[in-house]
Formats: sequence, C-alpha cells, structure tokens
Amino acid sequence: MSQMMLKTLRDAPADAETASHKLLVRAGYVRRAAAGVYSWLPLGKKVLENVTRVVREEMDAIGGQEVLLPALLPREIYEDSGRADEYGDLLFQLKDRKGTDYVLGPTHEELFTQVAQEQISSYKDLPAILYQIQTKYRDEARPRSGILRGREFQMKDSYSFDATDEGLAASYALHRAAYQRIFERLGLDYRICSAISGAMGGSASEEFLAPAAAGEDTFADCPACDYAANTEAVRTEVAAVDGSAHGPVEELDTPDTPTIETLAEHLGVPASATLKNLLVKVDGEITAVGVPGDREVDMGKLAELLAPAEVDIVTAEDFAGRPELVRGYVGPQGLGKIRYLADPRIAPGTSWITGANKPDTHARNVVCGRDFEVDQYVDVVVVQNGDPCPKCGAGLRLDRAIEIGHIFQLGRKYADAYRFDVLGQNGKPARVTMGSYGIGVSRAVAALAEQHSDEKGLCWPDEIAPYDVHVVAAGKAKQIEAALEVGERLAGLGLRVVVDDRNASPGVKFTDAELLGVPRTLVVGRRIDDGIVELKNRRGGTSEELEIDEAVRRLTA
Amino acid sequence: MSQMMLKTLRDAPADAETASHKLLVRAGYVRRAAAGVYSWLPLGKKVLENVTRVVREEMDAIGGQEVLLPALLPREIYEDSGRADEYGDLLFQLKDRKGTDYVLGPTHEELFTQVAQEQISSYKDLPAILYQIQTKYRDEARPRSGILRGREFQMKDSYSFDATDEGLAASYALHRAAYQRIFERLGLDYRICSAISGAMGGSASEEFLAPAAAGEDTFADCPACDYAANTEAVRTEVAAVDGSAHGPVEELDTPDTPTIETLAEHLGVPASATLKNLLVKVDGEITAVGVPGDREVDMGKLAELLAPAEVDIVTAEDFAGRPELVRGYVGPQGLGKIRYLADPRIAPGTSWITGANKPDTHARNVVCGRDFEVDQYVDVVVVQNGDPCPKCGAGLRLDRAIEIGHIFQLGRKYADAYRFDVLGQNGKPARVTMGSYGIGVSRAVAALAEQHSDEKGLCWPDEIAPYDVHVVAAGKAKQIEAALEVGERLAGLGLRVVVDDRNASPGVKFTDAELLGVPRTLVVGRRIDDGIVELKNRRGGTSEELEIDEAVRRLTA
Repeated sequence: MSQMMLKTLRDAPADAETASHKLLVRAGYVRRAAAGVYSWLPLGKKVLENVTRVVREEMDAIGGQEVLLPALLPREIYEDSGRADEYGDLLFQLKDRKGTDYVLGPTHEELFTQVAQEQISSYKDLPAILYQIQTKYRDEARPRSGILRGREFQMKDSYSFDATDEGLAASYALHRAAYQRIFERLGLDYRICSAISGAMGGSASEEFLAPAAAGEDTFADCPACDYAANTEAVRTEVAAVDGSAHGPVEELDTPDTPTIETLAEHLGVPASATLKNLLVKVDGEITAVGVPGDREVDMGKLAELLAPAEVDIVTAEDFAGRPELVRGYVGPQGLGKIRYLADPRIAPGTSWITGANKPDTHARNVVCGRDFEVDQYVDVVVVQNGDPCPKCGAGLRLDRAIEIGHIFQLGRKYADAYRFDVLGQNGKPARVTMGSYGIGVSRAVAALAEQHSDEKGLCWPDEIAPYDVHVVAAGKAKQIEAALEVGERLAGLGLRVVVDDRNASPGVKFTDAELLGVPRTLVVGRRIDDGIVELKNRRGGTSEELEIDEAVRRLTA
Repeated sequence: MSQMMLKTLRDAPADAETASHKLLVRAGYVRRAAAGVYSWLPLGKKVLENVTRVVREEMDAIGGQEVLLPALLPREIYEDSGRADEYGDLLFQLKDRKGTDYVLGPTHEELFTQVAQEQISSYKDLPAILYQIQTKYRDEARPRSGILRGREFQMKDSYSFDATDEGLAASYALHRAAYQRIFERLGLDYRICSAISGAMGGSASEEFLAPAAAGEDTFADCPACDYAANTEAVRTEVAAVDGSAHGPVEELDTPDTPTIETLAEHLGVPASATLKNLLVKVDGEITAVGVPGDREVDMGKLAELLAPAEVDIVTAEDFAGRPELVRGYVGPQGLGKIRYLADPRIAPGTSWITGANKPDTHARNVVCGRDFEVDQYVDVVVVQNGDPCPKCGAGLRLDRAIEIGHIFQLGRKYADAYRFDVLGQNGKPARVTMGSYGIGVSRAVAALAEQHSDEKGLCWPDEIAPYDVHVVAAGKAKQIEAALEVGERLAGLGLRVVVDDRNASPGVKFTDAELLGVPRTLVVGRRIDDGIVELKNRRGGTSEELEIDEAVRRLTA
C-alpha cells in the first residue's frame, strides 16, 4: 500500500447520496471525471476486471463468441432502424471533420445485425451467440449515484441469432441460465422479473433486479410465492362476479364534486367504490379509460400498451361540439360509440358510483356488463403495495432495486429492418429471429457495493474482491517486515494479497481496511514475537488470534 | 469452425492497399463499420486479447498500476493544457444535452495528471506508474490501411510520476525495457529510434518502429552500427575544414538562373556545390536559412526547431524597401544584420557558389567563416538515402515503418500547467516530473499482420495466434469425427485448438487454414485408418506424416 496510488477519504463527495457512491469514492475505487463519467482507479479496475472475468467465462460457457464493436457509429445505422428518434436526447451525437453524423452507441442491435448478416448465410451457421464487453454511452438527463447510472459505462451485450422461434427460445433460456450463474458467482441478491421491453421492441423479456434502497426501479415481489415483476409488468386478472342483485341505476345530486376526493367525501364512500373515467386521444380518436377511483393511470404504461398508436391528453377544444362529454361527470353508461378501455378491476358484474354525464350529477349502481360494456381491458394503473399477486393472490410488496441485467426476445424486428434471411432447412429463405441480452458490468459493481457494505465500508464477496487478504502491519519496522514476509508467502500460495506497509498508526490502517472491504484481514501486531497473528473476517467482524501457520492454512483452505 | 461466425473472402475490399488490411478482412478478423472504424470479429478479438495480455503482463512487471479512464472528457481539460487547439481537427468534439463541450480523448496526459494530483501528495508516494488499455479517438484526415491508422483504436497509455529528474530517467528506462520485452514477445521486428516529440512537448523521446512497406513513417537505419532514428531526428555534425587555400570571392555573370537547377546547368557544377538561401520570417523578423543546393528544407522540422517562435514564408511585400534582398540571387556574404541559420554541411572553411546579391549574378569561392558567419546551425534538411550515420559515418538507409510505440520524457509541462507539487524529500514542495508512454495495441495487430504474412495469408507468431493448432478434417464423417477427437485431446492438454469440421472440400479447408494463419495445422485425412496424420508448419510450409501420438507429442512439446 505504500506504493499503491490510493488516498482514502474521510468524507464522501457532496453530491453522493447512495452508499455505493459514497463508499466507492471514499475508498478510492472510482473518481468523478465529469457528470456521470468516472475514472476507475487501481482498486476499482481490479473489481471491474473480476466482474468482467465472471461474465466472460459464463458467456463462453454457453457458446458465446466474443467480439468488439466500435462505440463510434454512423448515425445512419440508427436512422435505418428508427431508433435515432426513439433514443432522442439520450444519444450522444457528433460530426466528424467532414460533417458526417455519428453517434456514440447506447446499445448495438443494429451493428450486430449487420455484422451477423454479412457472416451468416445458412441455417447451418445457426444458432449463433455473439457478445462484447464494451463501453456504452447514454446522455442521461440526470446522471447520478456515481457509477450506478453513468453516461459512459461498461456493459456486456450479447445477441442471439436463430432460424426458428424454438431456436430463439433455446438461446433465451441459455442466457437466462448463464445470467443466474453470473449473478450467483458475483454474490448478488437478485430477482428475475417479468418486464415490458421498452424501446427495444419485441416480446418476451425479463429483468434481473438487485434489491437495494438506492435502486431506481420499483418491482413487485410476492412474499408467498416466487412471483416478481417490474411494476410496469404486473398483470391483473379480470374476475367476473354475479351482478344480478344490484339495484337499478340511480342518479345522485352531487354539486361541486368534480374530483374523486370531493365526491367520496360528499357521499361518504371510499374512493375505491367510485369509477374514474379518463379521456384521452388515441391516434386522434377520443377514448375513455376507466379505473377505480383510488387508482392512478400510468400514462407511460398506457402509451406503451397502445403503441404504435399515439396517445395524447384531451384539451378543452376536444369537448367543443360534444355535449355528451360533461367534464368531471363522465360515466361509461353514456359514452355511445366512444371506445371504452378499463382496468381489470372493472370486471363484469361489479357495480360503481360514476359520472351521470350531466353537470353536478353522479350515478350509483352502474353495473359493468349491464349498464356499460368494456371494449378492452388494460393493465395501466400504478401498482400499489398489497395488490394481489397474479400467481397466488397474496399481497405484493413493492421494493426498490437496481436493474443489473435484461434479457429480451427481440424476434424479427431488426431482421425485418435489414431483410436478414438465411437459407432455411427447407431450402427456402428463413427470416432470422434475434434475442438481445445485457448486463450492466460497471453498474453491477455499484449494486455489489450497495448490497455488500455497512457503515464502516465495503465488504466484497470473495470472487469479486480486489484482494483475497489484506495484511495489516500494526506496528513499526518489525511488524512491517513480518507483514511483507507473510504477504509474500500467501502470494506464493496463489492468493491475491495487499500489505499495508505504510508508516501509519494501527487505527488508521484498521479503518482503511474496513473501508476497502477485502474479505479477510491478517493483522501482524505485537504478538508477532510469539508467532501469533490475528485473522479477521470483514463480513461479520469476527476475529481470532492464531499461530501464523494456522492462519496461512485457513486462508488457503 | 462449423459453429464459428466466420466467412472468409476470396477478394480483398476495394479500398484495401496494404497486406494487413487485405488479409485481416479476407480472413474474417476485422470488418469495417465506418471510415477508420472497425469491428473486431471473433478471431480478431482473440488476437487483440493476446496482444493486450502481453502488454498488461509486462506493464504489471514494472510496477504499473492499471486504471481505466473515460474516453468522454470535458473539452475544458484540454483547453487548460492548450492541447485543444494543438490537436485541432484531430479532436472529435461533441456537446451533451446541456450544451457542455466534450471531446473523445486522443490521449490522456491531462486527466492522468489530475487523477495523480488528487491521489499523490508526497515524494514517498513516488515513483508511480499508471496505465490503461483503452479506446482512443482521433479524427484522422485520411484514415486508411484498415486498423493501421484508425479513428477509433485501442491503445496502452501509461504515465510516470517522479519527484526528481533522476526518477524520471529511471521510469523512462523501465518503460524502454518493458517495451523491448513486449515487442519481442509479440514477435515484432522493430527498431528503437530517436524522435522529436511533436505535440506532446518534452525532451527525450524514442519511437519503436516496426519496419514494413505499409508503414507511414520513414526512418533512417544504419547498416553498420545500431543507430536508427526517425528521419526528423537525424542530426548532422558540423565538421570544420581548412578553407585557407580557397581563392577570393569571384562574381559570375549568370543571367536567367534563378533556380539551383538552371544555375548548376549553366555553370556545369553539381547542385551540391551551390548554396541555396531560403528566406523566412521568424516571429515577423526576416531570417535566412542556408542549405546545400541539392537539399530540401523540411519546413515542419524548421518550425518544430524554432518553436514557440512562429515561422512564416516571405511574400513580395517583405522585399519592398529592402534593395539588398535580390530575389533568386541572395548570398550570405551580403545579408548584413539578417540572422543566418545554416545546415551543418555549411561548415567553417567550406566554399560555395551562391547568390551575389545582384540580379543575374552569382559568386564563387564564398567561404564560410571568411566571407560570412553562421549565427546558428540547424538540422532542417530532408534526410536522404546514403547520408552519413551520425554515429559511425556509414551511409544511412531510409526505410518505411509502422510506429508501434513511443516513449517520452514529458518533464514538467503538465505538472506546471496544473501546479502539481508534492512534498519533497527536503520538506519543501517539489514539482512533479512526468513521462508518457504509448503502445498502439490495435495497430500492433496490423504490424504483426504486415510482418507475418505471405501471398497465401497470415502467419501469426505463437504467442499471438488465435489458436495453437488448426485441425483440418480432410474427408467425410470418419475424418470429421477423428478430427474432433484429436482436437478434444489437444485441448485437454492445454492447447488452444480450432477444428475445421465443416462440410467442405479439403482444398477449401487448406486454403482457409493458410489464410487464417494458425502456426500449426494437423490434417486428418485418408491415412487416419492407419493412425497417420499430417503435421504442417504454416511458417516455412514444411509438413510431415506422423503417427497421431507423435503429432500430439510434438504439438505439446
């Protein structure tokens, strides 16, 4: 350590809010170069390299072929696929000296498709899995939490190419299993969650989420079964009930109750007994969306669900010449030909208090299937703690998490864009089907730091730690000499060792050792005269005095 | 190979001129993504990784600490050091979504200095060597020769930090020795050449050049001793001679001879007997530069030598009101107070035919030291084949080469720019002195391909080859099965093996094997029934029929 470029800090940077950000900077693993752009210092580079090695080994084990594609890419490639616009401001854009437009690759579906298309011509060349561990760029609006959400970051991205849907399913399953092995080896606590695929396009998709308070994703976790899903992907069943006992529709005089809150208070009912109807425009057509009064519509989810149709909010002008639409008092029973989308909780047979389509008037006993019909059920409400698990019905728990991996069945989206066909088994052209799979390699380091740290510092899992053993010379020349000696001995036995041979007090050294988070510390102190050292476990904080040989034996066991 | 993403090409790309470019593309190692931007396909990635590993091992061996700094950097950093302007159009520039200016790092002196400054505070922390193997960006005006001169490329850059000049010299020597080991392990033929340091600033500097026809650098190589230098760095001695026997200056009527060619022809003397005087402006001051008539002045060398003074060419206006300056007939004997710089060949005692400072008139017997004085000797002529070696006097040979490495003693240039001081041994602040050292990692792959290839294809050195053994199944099912079996066996013995198990003719497979360039090929053909295989050496093309066990024994020897 006397030769290592390392200066630990007592204080975290002012902008640091998360544990990983604070500790990785304080312990000298990373250093900010610009907003969302970090330098990896010697200790950080070792950890990053360890994560990279695990990812590479497991990708090789499923037959992945490693390549390295450029980060600097002609913008044209992303225009052809339509993603230049889709990414928008997230894309770093530049021009070269000749004025040609370039981007810094945020992910590489396009170029991988083109590369594969040039190299692969027959079903016999398939399946193929290509991967790279490479630097990616995204101009995040709010880069934060250090390396957790950076603008320049390390990612493993892989792409599978298959001639058939079954082939894609198999490549997807290979990746899923490889990701499980990777995150287990990394020592990450994680959940596999159903996900919707966002800008990637495609169908089946799962996220690997590492629960952490610092996480930017919310996911729903079932405490009773193995269900877990991105909250955006939680689905609710439509459970029809017998509605025959409900009385007829009855109008209620409800002056000055344009909101659910005022209405529920006025009537003395829970908001969940009321039916809220949101008007939107879908490709210019006015459409109503019904949800229980205590629920919020997630406009992003709605847009995602109805894409590629455009979803807009209605404006005052849209009400002009539509006297049937009474703002604040819309009810589905009077919508005529207007399309009605509804949350699955508005199931056939359920009865609601809703607008009566007259000013200052609501209606009760408005029964789904009797008084109005739902054209399409849509899962667009914001999920809440306690919502029923779609699998077992128990109350879901909402938790924060870091997305560390994502696997997608892209299908033929990119192959269609580039007309990527191969010779099929039947002698005819077969359109290739693809998968896309990502692991945030630098982000995984942040997730590890979040999950494996305490108030004293970092606490790395064995395979990822920058060193196996941190030897602390707690004393003067004699201890330093003995520490260097036992360090040499351990290194000779194949361990990765760092020796704190600095001229500093034992207190400073112990504090640094805890901050740095190497799994085991071997303290060479006063009792070295009797051949006794202290062996400490960073995790759990246990320690034991042992003869040197016994300590070495345990460390190499 | 039936599963590898690889399609070899019969024809080289239309824009390929050099052997490495043609072969690396034809053999499926790299693929063009944009001008000067390449994708590394599976075979290429393996070779790149092998080069990287060698570089990393040798950098670690001299105590280098590996880090990873970002490529995306605030432009400001390069403004502070003055290099933003110096690099000019070579810098890729961009703005982020907030309008902040960024560049893609062409080399990292600035950020390394800043990082070290934050981490290092005392002479006790020194010396320190930091390095990274990372992607660099330069917007070359004419990217060409594939990966030889790319716009996105892989580089190892390292930086040494020392408190004293002696420390810097030692860090420089460590790097020089490490580079020798690296290039020897890579199997590159190379020369260490004196160099001038260009945009880097600083004093001592050497280049590692790999002789190759495709090279963009010219260097002077002495066939008689170990001298080698970038042509820009070749120095000539000033060797005074006895000039007392020369007759007095004599004017010659030389109408219509404004050029050296016309003059030499008119007088019937070699151009080397004449003295050519170039007028330039140095920081606005008219200055004359004298060189033998058969020599050209390298204006770049002159500018470099006189920097930071500005060198401009003279225009007609500069002659106005200066009747003593007669265009085309200038001689140093009549320059008055004008500063006279000269090539060392214009040594004291040498006699010349030169302008007589009158129209249509020259003078002979103009002797240096008698008739004119040289204010400063400057090495600014273009070096020619046969020029004397500065070390032993033998005739130098000019050769083309690829610059694969460069080592610089930067000195305190960057430390001064950032006021980087540490606590010195005497208790006072000591300004840090730095070195900067680069290896073109991706370019080294091109240099290897240039030096290790023939008309049939590539021919990799052992440590760099993508595989140790290329097993070719020359036949049908039986040979394929046997080839896969012996491949497994060799892999089990620790060799890196590729098996050509494709359904293709032996001819196609042999051609591909020669193109791919794995050092040894094991052919499983007809005689496999008798347990006989053929072992071929790619280099030299020798081959031998052997029993399988003997072939395996030789391969693992």
